[in-house]
Amino acid sequence: MGPPNMTAPEPRPGDQEGGSRVAVVAGSGSLPVAVVSTLRATGASPYVVLVEGEAKDDPVFDQSEHIRFRIEELGLLLPALRKARVGRLVLAGGIARRPRLRAIRWTFPLLRALPRLVAAFAGGDDKVLRTVVSIAEENGIEIVGAHEVAPGLLAPEGVLTRRGPVGTDRRDIEAASAAALAIGRLDIGQAAIAVGGRAVALEGIEGTDGLLARMANLRSHGRLAGKTRGVLVKHCKPLQELRVDLPAVGPETVAGAHAAGLAGIVVDAGKSFILDYDRTIALADEHGLFILGLKPEGGNL
Amino acid sequence: MGPPNMTAPEPRPGDQEGGSRVAVVAGSGSLPVAVVSTLRATGASPYVVLVEGEAKDDPVFDQSEHIRFRIEELGLLLPALRKARVGRLVLAGGIARRPRLRAIRWTFPLLRALPRLVAAFAGGDDKVLRTVVSIAEENGIEIVGAHEVAPGLLAPEGVLTRRGPVGTDRRDIEAASAAALAIGRLDIGQAAIAVGGRAVALEGIEGTDGLLARMANLRSHGRLAGKTRGVLVKHCKPLQELRVDLPAVGPETVAGAHAAGLAGIVVDAGKSFILDYDRTIALADEHGLFILGLKPEGGNL
Repeated sequence: MGPPNMTAPEPRPGDQEGGSRVAVVAGSGSLPVAVVSTLRATGASPYVVLVEGEAKDDPVFDQSEHIRFRIEELGLLLPALRKARVGRLVLAGGIARRPRLRAIRWTFPLLRALPRLVAAFAGGDDKVLRTVVSIAEENGIEIVGAHEVAPGLLAPEGVLTRRGPVGTDRRDIEAASAAALAIGRLDIGQAAIAVGGRAVALEGIEGTDGLLARMANLRSHGRLAGKTRGVLVKHCKPLQELRVDLPAVGPETVAGAHAAGLAGIVVDAGKSFILDYDRTIALADEHGLFILGLKPEGGNL
Repeated sequence: MGPPNMTAPEPRPGDQEGGSRVAVVAGSGSLPVAVVSTLRATGASPYVVLVEGEAKDDPVFDQSEHIRFRIEELGLLLPALRKARVGRLVLAGGIARRPRLRAIRWTFPLLRALPRLVAAFAGGDDKVLRTVVSIAEENGIEIVGAHEVAPGLLAPEGVLTRRGPVGTDRRDIEAASAAALAIGRLDIGQAAIAVGGRAVALEGIEGTDGLLARMANLRSHGRLAGKTRGVLVKHCKPLQELRVDLPAVGPETVAGAHAAGLAGIVVDAGKSFILDYDRTIALADEHGLFILGLKPEGGNL
């Protein structure tokens, strides 16, 4: 059911297939920048929704048609997207802040969705995202994954750096992988670090950069004394809503892993992003770290 | 098979049943103090092995017959225990530091056990502990759990404080409990914290006090803004070697939970320790925290 009083959007030059313009909701981190840049490089003219308090300042946003948007104004977003003839929406980057209920500008579709949104916020991240997706789609906007509009950002398979894992890293990869999957299954986090063959630190709400910063401090812990190397494994959550929250690593992850004394980073090939690929790999090579893309058990998208 | 050239130990007044003296290997934390105090209160004369760099200074140790012991001297421990007529050994408290191989004083039984010890150190904590237990028992020393010589330290069932959990705490208890069990199953940690119905921080190698310190900082994280309360759940690992590493909470846990803004603490009734019980409960009451002992699914010991 399409929105009322609206003619079908007409194709514009440079837009994606179907004449339906792509909007990018830009949350925190570098993924939104990468997605918008990639879209522009393919000739599209993405409509950028900068989430206040989350989206970075970046020239590529200024160069694109964009609006600034407070999460409390969620109800105003749908009309704005319709006006801009947006048919497909990419949610990119983190939105850590939850709306303050008293500041929300209520609109009718939002009120109608309220019970579901409340239930979703009570659940994990995944539940929130799946709910937002279904509400948007009921309003005639298709949510697509960043990997669908920018597949070049997906991590390739294999060793991506000059160095690869050495023998002892294999046990760390196994231990961290099992831990990351276990916490992912519970919708807690995506990443885990193993040193000396055992998982020693797990991602919670602090995110991967926070986990790595913590690991740097843990290095002096008695039980890690004399232990070197160690691996960060970041997995797509088993039940992840793939269209909205694919794991990403980038130069900051590499810098954090290096500061934490780790030997390398493992990501899901084809199911996670490597942001700023050239700089990420160059930085890893500079520090002697490996980055390995492993085919996840569930296969590619 | 008993040790050679040794007569059977004779009963001494105040010793435990069977005339076999109890030794307490005192690692870090308050558990060893609690165990030695409890033993002395029952009239026993425990032989205390203070692990250097781990055991606290405490008057109750000075009042007991004791030796100081570097973990590299593991091979000398068995003869010392035999000389002191020790037949039962309690391992209490953490031993975070791993022996430096080059500093180890090798003895024949130790050399014989080496392959197993190396394999054990490559595995998790549980594996190390199970291996140490089996080596001691082959040498005629029975390893008993702290709860066997000091059952009064075990957490009772039910609400132990003036306040109990409120309605919204139940979701936190469920979420933290599921998370703690998941990481316990992987032999990573025992504790997890949930806020607003979801697990937000998981114990790694930093231990429960480290986890709580971290949580205090996470309070300012955007995703937790406006959220209050939250619960720490600490579970016995499903495959835990019960004789050597039962989870414990005490006044420091309560202070840490209070500083982290939590509403309460949940432990396994009959399968975990509450150290310094009166002070722990009084401090929780002072801060308005609850402590709840829940019957673990596997039942009591």
